[in-house]
Parts: sequence; C-alpha cells; structure tokens
Amino acid sequence: MNLYGFQTARRIVSGCNSLQSLRDHLGPLAQAKSALLITQASLLRFGFVQEILDQLSGLGIETDTLTDVLPEPTAANIEEMHEKIRHRPFELYIGVGGGSVLDATKILSVLKTNDKKVVDLLGTDLVDRPGVPTVLIPTTSGTGSEVTPNAIVTLPDEELKIGIVSRYLLPELVVMDPVLTRGLPKPITAATGMDAFTHSFESFISNKANPISDMFALESIRLISRSIAAAYHDGADLEARERMMIGSMYGGMALTSAGTAAVHALAYPLGGKYNIPHGVANSMLLPHVTEFNLDVITERLVPVAEAMGLTRGEIGAEEASRLVIDQLLAWTRELDIPQNLESYGVTPADVPALAEAAMKVTRLLNNNPKKVSEEDAAAIYRKLLP
Amino acid sequence: MNLYGFQTARRIVSGCNSLQSLRDHLGPLAQAKSALLITQASLLRFGFVQEILDQLSGLGIETDTLTDVLPEPTAANIEEMHEKIRHRPFELYIGVGGGSVLDATKILSVLKTNDKKVVDLLGTDLVDRPGVPTVLIPTTSGTGSEVTPNAIVTLPDEELKIGIVSRYLLPELVVMDPVLTRGLPKPITAATGMDAFTHSFESFISNKANPISDMFALESIRLISRSIAAAYHDGADLEARERMMIGSMYGGMALTSAGTAAVHALAYPLGGKYNIPHGVANSMLLPHVTEFNLDVITERLVPVAEAMGLTRGEIGAEEASRLVIDQLLAWTRELDIPQNLESYGVTPADVPALAEAAMKVTRLLNNNPKKVSEEDAAAIYRKLLP
Ligand SMILES: NC(=O)c1ccc[n+]([C@@H]2O[C@H](COP(=O)([O-])OP(=O)(O)OC[C@H]3O[C@@H](n4cnc5c(N)ncnc54)[C@H](O)[C@@H]3O)[C@@H](O)[C@H]2O)c1
Ligand SMILES: NC(=O)c1ccc[n+]([C@@H]2O[C@H](COP(=O)([O-])OP(=O)(O)OC[C@H]3O[C@@H](n4cnc5c(N)ncnc54)[C@H](O)[C@@H]3O)[C@@H](O)[C@H]2O)c1
Ligand SMILES: [Fe+2]
Ligand SMILES: [Fe+2]
Repeated sequence: MNLYGFQTARRIVSGCNSLQSLRDHLGPLAQAKSALLITQASLLRFGFVQEILDQLSGLGIETDTLTDVLPEPTAANIEEMHEKIRHRPFELYIGVGGGSVLDATKILSVLKTNDKKVVDLLGTDLVDRPGVPTVLIPTTSGTGSEVTPNAIVTLPDEELKIGIVSRYLLPELVVMDPVLTRGLPKPITAATGMDAFTHSFESFISNKANPISDMFALESIRLISRSIAAAYHDGADLEARERMMIGSMYGGMALTSAGTAAVHALAYPLGGKYNIPHGVANSMLLPHVTEFNLDVITERLVPVAEAMGLTRGEIGAEEASRLVIDQLLAWTRELDIPQNLESYGVTPADVPALAEAAMKVTRLLNNNPKKVSEEDAAAIYRKLLP
Repeated sequence: MNLYGFQTARRIVSGCNSLQSLRDHLGPLAQAKSALLITQASLLRFGFVQEILDQLSGLGIETDTLTDVLPEPTAANIEEMHEKIRHRPFELYIGVGGGSVLDATKILSVLKTNDKKVVDLLGTDLVDRPGVPTVLIPTTSGTGSEVTPNAIVTLPDEELKIGIVSRYLLPELVVMDPVLTRGLPKPITAATGMDAFTHSFESFISNKANPISDMFALESIRLISRSIAAAYHDGADLEARERMMIGSMYGGMALTSAGTAAVHALAYPLGGKYNIPHGVANSMLLPHVTEFNLDVITERLVPVAEAMGLTRGEIGAEEASRLVIDQLLAWTRELDIPQNLESYGVTPADVPALAEAAMKVTRLLNNNPKKVSEEDAAAIYRKLLP
C-alpha cells in the first residue's frame, strides 16, 4: 500500500501588503481578548511589528510583545519564554519572524496546553492537545515553517538539533507578505532561499516522494530557481521576493508530505554544535550530498533540471544531472555561499563526531534515496574542509 | 493590492486502499463516542460503507447510518435529514459519496451548531460557528467538495442552485481512495471528470486567478487530461482513477482560491429547473462558453494547451486555443457527453427564463474574464438546442 498525505495551515493569505489587511483575515480569531506577539528584538526596527500591534488594538485586542527568541532557539530558551508567559491569559499567539520565531511560537503554543517539557515533545506525535491558536507571519523565505507541522529545537548538550512533529503545531492563519522580506540582508536571502530550495529538492528525491509532494516540490523548484539570484542582487525586487516566498511555502508543503533527507540530517550537527545557521549549513552541503546521491537519482533529475529552467524537451538523464550539479555549484559562487567549515571553527579532527551525530537523525536519513554510512557522512563533511 | 489565499481540509490521506487504514488517520477524532455515517442507499451495495462502519466499531465508536441524501440535494431534503438527527448526540459526521453526499454532510454539520435554516446560510460567510467535525470520503472524482469551503443547494422554487461558502464547511479529515471510484458508471465518470476539469479550467481563466490557484489548476488539467479517457474506457484502471481523484481534489483547491465562472453560472439553472446532473450540465456548456470567452483568454490557453499535452514548446496563442477547443469537442464525442438540452425537456421557449436565472449567479459571473450579458447567455444555451 502506497499512502501519502497532505496537511497544512488552516488558512493562508498571500500577496504584497497582505499584512495591511490582517484584521480582515482573522475571522473567529478576532474575538480573542488578548494576544501575544512573539518576535525578536532585532526585528522591532521594521515597521511590521508595529503594524500588527496597531491592527490588533484597532480590533480591541489587548497585546503584549515577547522579543526573546534566540536564533535557532534552544530548548532552554523556549522554556524560559514559556515561564514568562504561562500564567498570562493570551488567547492567541502571533509569531512574526524567520523560522526561529515561527518554530518558537508553535512550541510555546502547545507548551501552554500540554503539561510537558520541550524535551518530552521531541519526536513525532508526542503533543497530546491543540495549543493556543497561532497566526504565523514569515519574514524570511526559507523554512516553510508557517505551513509545516514541524518545529526544530537546538540541543547544545547533545550537539544536535531535533524536530517536534505534530499536527497541533499547524497555525490557524498564515500571512505571506513578501514586502516583509524586502529588508532581508543578502547572506540571509541566499542561505534561507537555498534552505527552501533544499526542502523541495530533498522532498522530490525522498523515498516518500508522492504525487502531492512532487507537485509542490517542482513548482517550488521552478519559482526559486527563477528568482533566487534576482532576490539576492536586488532585495527590493518584489516580484522575485514574492516568488521566493511562495516557493518557500511550497517547500514546506512538499516536506510535510515527503520529508527532507541527508542534507538536513548532516546539517543538524553543524547547527547544534557550531551554531552554523540552518540555511548556511544546508546550502553548503547540498551540492556535495547531491553528488553523493547522484547515481541513484539521475532519472529523477530530469524533471528537476526542467523545473530549474536548465533544459526544455528531451534530454538524457546523465546530462540533466550534470546540469543540476553545475547550477548548484554556480549558486555557491553567485550567492557567495560559504564552502568552508573551517571558518566556523570545524577542524578535520571534529569530523568523526559530526558524522556520528548525523547518524542519529534517522527520521531524515530514512528518507534519503541512498543509504548513508557514517563513513559516507564523514567524507561529505571533509569536502567542506581544506 | 492583489491578495490571494488558500484554505483546505485539515488533513488529507490518499492512495489506493487508504480507506482500509481510516482508523489510523482519525487522530483526535477517534475519541468520538458516536458517529453518523451519511451516504445514499444506492451506495450501500459497495463494500466501502461497511468497511467504514467496521473500523469505527473496532475503535469502540457507536455508529448510525443516514442514507437519505438525494442527488443534488434540495434545501428541503437537507432540512428533513437534519430534523431526523438534530437531537442525536453524534460527535462526528462521516460523509461517503459523491458531491451530493459531501455537500449534504457539510451542511448538516453546521446546521447542528448554528441556529439557522439552510436558506439563511446561502451566500458567503453566513455560518456563525464551527459545525460537528466531519470526515469526507469522495466516491466520485468530480466536485472537489472534500476540500472546498462550499456546498451547493438546489432550490426548486427558485429554479436555481445556490452555494453556501464558509470556512466552517471544511472537514477535519479527507480520505482519497481511488478504489472507491472503480464502480463508477461510464456516464458518471465522464460527467464528474469533466466537472473537475471545468473547475480547474475556469479557475485558471478566472479574474481571481493567482499563483496558488494556477499551480493547482494546471496540475489538475495535466492529471485529468492524461486520464479521463482511460478512466472512462476502463473503470478498473486504478492509475487513471488515482490521477482523476487527485486531479479533482486539485480542482477543488483551485476553485477555492480563484472561483469558477460562466460555465458554472449557466449550469445552475439547468440543475435547478431541469435536474440535469451538475457534471453533465458543465460538460455540455464548457466548449461553448470557452468559444464565447475565446478572444479574451487566447493567451492564457497556451499553458493550458501544454498542460493538456496538446503541444510542447513554442506555439502561437491562436493555435493553442484552437487545439484546446478541438480537444474539448473531441471529448464530447469520445466520452459521449450529451450536446442536446432537448432530451432533458428544455425547449427553445425556455431559453429566456434560463438566461434570466443565470444572470442571478453574480458570485460566479464576476469571475468570468468576459462580461456575459443575458443575450450572450441565451445564445450559449441555444447552441445546445437543435
Ligand atoms: N519548522 C520547519 O519546518 C523548519 C524547516 C527548516 C528549518 N527550520 C528551523 O528554522 C530556523 C531557521 O529559520 P530561518 O532560516 O528563517 O532563520 P532565522 O529565523 O534564524 O532568521 C535568520 C536571521 O535573519 C533575521 N531576520 C529575519 N527576518 C528578517 C527580515 N525580514 N529582515 C531582516 N532580518 C531578518 C533574524 O532576526 C535572524 O537574525 C532553524 O532553527 C531551523 O532549524 C524549521
Ligand atoms: N462543494 C463544491 O465545491 C461543489 C463543486 C461542484 C459541484 N458540487 C455539487 O455536487 C453535486 C454533484 O456531485 P457529483 O457530481 O459527485 O454527483 P453525485 O454525488 O450526485 O453522484 C452522482 C451519482 O453517482 C452515484 N455514485 C456516487 N459514487 C458512486 C460510486 N463510487 N459508484 C457508483 N455510483 C456512485 C450517486 O449515487 C449518484 O447517483 C451537485 O449538487 C453539485 O452542485 C459541489
Ligand atoms: Fe531546512
Ligand atoms: Fe462543479
């Protein structure tokens, strides 16, 4: 039996300036008496936080703001925030920020209603009850977290990142306003964009790929391939920003259905131990893991090459896969994606421990079309060292 | 400002024989003490109704079955069913059947919790509260009702069909098992399949078409064009049945975001007054309405022609639109789609009243890329009379 599925946010509203009509899209959530806006202090200088607060006030909703989310939040960071707010009667949590903020918001929402610690929730379906309803408003085009039932936690002690997977993490409303990403700095545009691309790429070659995930993955690959360089070179190009945002959302939908694979598995130890940002770790690894997978995915890369706009019409599988790898490498140059782990403090002596840690991410490694041994993983990390 | 959105069922499970693992997908719904299965008497002879009842019993859920849904149910039919069950404490409604059953289930669900009559709900956003949670299990590949916030009611007095549109009509779970459509008779396969095609086609040319609806529409057009003849000629071709089912679901997702247009507007009076099945009315009208729209949609038909597999690579818009119209006409022959309203009791003298009624369906006519006058509508109906 070959089952596959799909689940996503309850309601999605998109388009440039869609945030300005947030109040019109809240539906029953507009009945909330008080709402907590969750974000990061560094994002307060953008107008969007105030815009949200003003609209909520206009509806007579009391608001407070929590700005303590750390980049790629640890379990401890989330527990501390939860302690601060657990006794406050917020009926709505609104997360506005990148994947770090969205993931934190999702986890805080279920911590409020489930009598469990963050570490008790790590894994699949360990959340018992729906959380406080959430609105998620992404400001990066990368994780797709706004539409996935996943949230990723950094565990410094274990030198790893681990996911919480639960239907209860899905939000009631998502607002996708590309205008919010206009101020995203170049390196973050590149890294988060390549993270989104990786979600779709890995979903498409995943062992769990299926007709639903394939549609989202290919459309996402199409949108991102057309736009990532444009968004990188001119952050104010709102058409490119919009395609990136929708492409990254589709990446989330694809991975919800098919899962990511070895790139993500190998990225987690780099985030957990060396604080390499998630998008950077993925985009560094992507060409090398793809090279490793190549012999078993050659045929699958024909539609990928076409979606990437590298070819049209009949083409051999070998040629298609060469074109794909070349484009991945070309992006590392054009988008200035680091190709050296040393600059993050990784030395050749660290590789065995990294490989060992990656082997623990079985949830994702199981999706990879080719078995990855600990030695394989080590060899891949070594490609990123001099 | 150009806003667009997306909303759908909470959770979708697909694949051949997915119904056999229904119990594994119920999640929190498995806590229900009692469930009502809503279907039609004519469907009881298929194994799927018993399969569902057995699985629910296995979970300790008490069940009862309601088989009174009429084809294309009237408001009165739905009110009568509601009277029968309103005082029963069902915590879950499970609809299994074609669009008629799914729409009835959705409406019954909100009648239970909203103190309103069916006629009070006709229109957009007139449902005040969530209904009884629903599971929807389609047995035709046509309406996409399992994933839309719409339900259509027949109003014999007004000689029209009208829609209820509300987020509260969306189900908690959808099970898409193509095996259930294996016994669908040829004429129903053709008419419901062309209904699904029409959803995607009209969404793609709709004034409200947008990047999200376009993706679903084109993929749906791709899947249905590849499979409708195969499913028609060999109902046991499960690969074709699966593509039809997913294609019809995507049609529902496309129309949720972009809306259908003049084909559906003109079809409603044919259903309301002459009981012409919805899919038949749409598939009769589609080529003629497309011919009418042609001058304003020519450019849009280039990607449609490509998705239909009629062309690949560079092609002129004129040529593409000719190919599309030819294929629509070819389907009427290959799939034996009626092209004569007379056989349903419509006479030339009835045309003015039909056209007048169609003009009332402004919700859909507003989506049509070309303004349709009452005279235009009459001229289109006349094409289906000798
Ligand atoms: N839930 C999921 O499905 C999923 C998927 C992939 C990754 N993740 C997780 O998401 C996190 C990464 O999220 P991310 O890549 O979006 O990065 P991020 O949220 O950490 O943001 C990166 C940096 O960009 C800043 N920033 C965000 N929006 C900005 C804007 N509009 N303008 C200027 N600066 C802005 C942030 O303050 C931060 O400093 C990781 O923890 C990763 O593991 C989750
Ligand atoms: N909610 C929406 O978004 C939406 C969209 C389009 C149409 N509709 C509505 O849906 C209704 C039409 O639904 P439909 O086209 O699916 O037809 P239907 O539900 O009326 O079914 C058509 C016939 O096929 C039979 N049937 C159904 N499944 C079968 C199976 N597996 N094997 C054998 N026979 C089977 C039914 O008993 C019925 O006699 C109309 O009222 C239409 O207006 C709703
Ligand atoms: Fe990622
Ligand atoms: Fe329809």
